[in-house]
Amino acid sequence: MRILGIDPGVAIVGFGLIESDRGSLRMLQYGAITTPAGQPLAARLLQISRDMEELIQSFQPDEMSIEELFFSKNITTGIAVAHARGVILCAAEKHKLPIYEYTPMQVKQAVVGYGLADKKQVMDMTRRLLKLKAVPRPDDAADALAIALCHARSATSLLRRTDPGVKETV
Amino acid sequence: MRILGIDPGVAIVGFGLIESDRGSLRMLQYGAITTPAGQPLAARLLQISRDMEELIQSFQPDEMSIEELFFSKNITTGIAVAHARGVILCAAEKHKLPIYEYTPMQVKQAVVGYGLADKKQVMDMTRRLLKLKAVPRPDDAADALAIALCHARSATSLLRRTDPGVKETV
Repeated sequence: MRILGIDPGVAIVGFGLIESDRGSLRMLQYGAITTPAGQPLAARLLQISRDMEELIQSFQPDEMSIEELFFSKNITTGIAVAHARGVILCAAEKHKLPIYEYTPMQVKQAVVGYGLADKKQVMDMTRRLLKLKAVPRPDDAADALAIALCHARSATSLLRRTDPGVKETV
Repeated sequence: MRILGIDPGVAIVGFGLIESDRGSLRMLQYGAITTPAGQPLAARLLQISRDMEELIQSFQPDEMSIEELFFSKNITTGIAVAHARGVILCAAEKHKLPIYEYTPMQVKQAVVGYGLADKKQVMDMTRRLLKLKAVPRPDDAADALAIALCHARSATSLLRRTDPGVKETV
């Protein structure tokens, strides 16, 4: 199963594509969509929308894993990210891609085994689990791979517990 | 000039189309895009995106006026609205529609002449300025007409003051 992990943002959308086959994990692609800072928000959103559609069409993922939004930090930034996230969800839905959402804590728990792990630990485990020589750059791409890994490992463990399956969230 | 006013939301997106011709104002259309509560957010966003594109193609507006987001109330609701607003901005940009954004206070100031006016006053002035028999329903459509009026009146007063024009905002 091909999983497309997405770390949403306006200036930069990290993406990471992995192949998950009965517990075996392999990195296929990673990178970032970037939009120029000087442009109006609407123009940046349209670019994200088009680039996301291109990614989905060229990667042909089976499922998308995306981080939920949390607002402990900066509400203004969070609002902008939510605009971008809306456009990303919309692009995925247009291509009938099943969407799974995880909190940052769920990502840490699934990747490191500890929900309060720090960023460095997540990056390092992502690198190890995907057998990469170095942590991918930019950070947003590494985060996206971690989000994809989170879905791969959550789906596996849920299947092991013979649950009806991972619930598609709002 | 045809102005499409938009009151963004996930469950309901109010819209109002007015014609503004050298200070003369006329209501052309109003209504709401609604999405079913039980559906996943991504499906509702896709519906909003498609309905917005249909509106723009059928109404052929010259400019779009949309409310800015404020978070004095409920952050969780605000995040969902920001997702929808992202999709709406993206649809407008796709159709090369110039986008103008106003705060709730600017809308009240432009429509009633008083930035702290209450909802009832805004509704009533919207009805009077557009020479309507009753306040349009639902409220979201009336709000959208007020947002369109705000742009019509702001653009007019700016021209009167021989400013270079209304700045297109982020």
